[in-house]
Amino acid sequence: MSGIQPPEAPYELFYWPTIQGRGEVVRLALEDAGVAYVDAARLPEKSGGGVAGMMKIMREQSDPGSMRPLAPPLLRAGDVVIAQTAAILHWLAPRIGMCPIDETIRTRALQLQLTLSDLVNESHDVHHPISTALTFEDQRDEALKASKSFRELRIPKFLGWLESVVTGREPGPNAYLAGPFTYVDLSLFWVLRGLGYAFPRTMANLEPKIPRLVLLRDEIASRPRIAAYLASSRCAPFDEDGIFRHYPELDGG
Amino acid sequence: MSGIQPPEAPYELFYWPTIQGRGEVVRLALEDAGVAYVDAARLPEKSGGGVAGMMKIMREQSDPGSMRPLAPPLLRAGDVVIAQTAAILHWLAPRIGMCPIDETIRTRALQLQLTLSDLVNESHDVHHPISTALTFEDQRDEALKASKSFRELRIPKFLGWLESVVTGREPGPNAYLAGPFTYVDLSLFWVLRGLGYAFPRTMANLEPKIPRLVLLRDEIASRPRIAAYLASSRCAPFDEDGIFRHYPELDGG
Repeated sequence: MSGIQPPEAPYELFYWPTIQGRGEVVRLALEDAGVAYVDAARLPEKSGGGVAGMMKIMREQSDPGSMRPLAPPLLRAGDVVIAQTAAILHWLAPRIGMCPIDETIRTRALQLQLTLSDLVNESHDVHHPISTALTFEDQRDEALKASKSFRELRIPKFLGWLESVVTGREPGPNAYLAGPFTYVDLSLFWVLRGLGYAFPRTMANLEPKIPRLVLLRDEIASRPRIAAYLASSRCAPFDEDGIFRHYPELDGG
Repeated sequence: MSGIQPPEAPYELFYWPTIQGRGEVVRLALEDAGVAYVDAARLPEKSGGGVAGMMKIMREQSDPGSMRPLAPPLLRAGDVVIAQTAAILHWLAPRIGMCPIDETIRTRALQLQLTLSDLVNESHDVHHPISTALTFEDQRDEALKASKSFRELRIPKFLGWLESVVTGREPGPNAYLAGPFTYVDLSLFWVLRGLGYAFPRTMANLEPKIPRLVLLRDEIASRPRIAAYLASSRCAPFDEDGIFRHYPELDGG
């Protein structure tokens, strides 16, 4: 598979510098792989970084074969610029040891990542059901209504399915979501941490029903590079500007 | 690229039989490619088809290396079972001449498909902002609020970006979304038809600002196999059970 070679240029991630957001699973994959990368929008603006530098990349369309991305995250590696988290990870992961090249496993990982993306989207929309152009406070009543279905139906549906996927794997080195350990396990880790932050009561009630996912989450938290990353200043905390937000009224009671 | 070979078994698509929905862009790709496929859930239940047959496939997890899908659409080709529209198309398209094998173009097509998927998700959520477990009528007030932002901000943002992608291409055989003609052009075609069905007033106002997309939509409508498909009973009509629904009150006025 000669097409799958790491680029000679360093990986540059462009994403909002102060939140985890949709860039976080790309960060986690790069961190766990132990490869060098630049979190470009966290560099000083005077050296071309910051949000201003990211916006400049997004406006540029110098290569007519390429295209201006619609939204971050973006990954740049030499001449390659890719947007959309799942597309970034599909391209990146085989190059950094975060997914086998084998097409069956790679396709399964993409399918899993897209299902996790669906859950991430719903985790966002539950606090912004009407418009991303309005604040949470502007749509708090609607968010309260939306949160009931999200807590009672959607989280259990997604996490129950993910539990069944892991349970269906043979024990051993292929006991992960896609079989072998891949970037989608890191995505699951992030989603479980995010849901635990945003919906601590809901998740505490649900955890007895998803024992394999809880084990997997805790195993990943203890991977040396992940533990080092979580303890570092490179990992932004969860907060109420990101996708997973803790508004206690949305957590039931 | 020895991994990209058509399977020996026929393609079987499993999707809700009476709506277009997230299976439609897979149907369009198979139809435009002119390859044989089975729309399995439209076969009689007594021969293993129908929704009952689809649900049976979704419950089965006989192969421990595989996984039970969470939701349709599913594509089966011999031993391969894939869910998630974008993952299905990424795997299928190079096998049926709907995307080059070249990794740059294939990745770009995936990125575009994922952005179109985001627009499709928002096109659904605008009439179901609170819960998919409730009817539209149960959340009509919230949908009215959500539709303002969708019409005024989101449709123009997505379609303006797609217009800029096409405009950035050199004229000629590489003037399509990903460069050469690919399945994402069919996805765009479906989204434009769907938005035109659901939001005729909004789209009539917007069309002068997206001339290249309108040309592309009309060009695709006249492709012989697409025209034949649209005129056939295989193509379900748009209606108020699918993703794109025409509720006049959501179209502004």
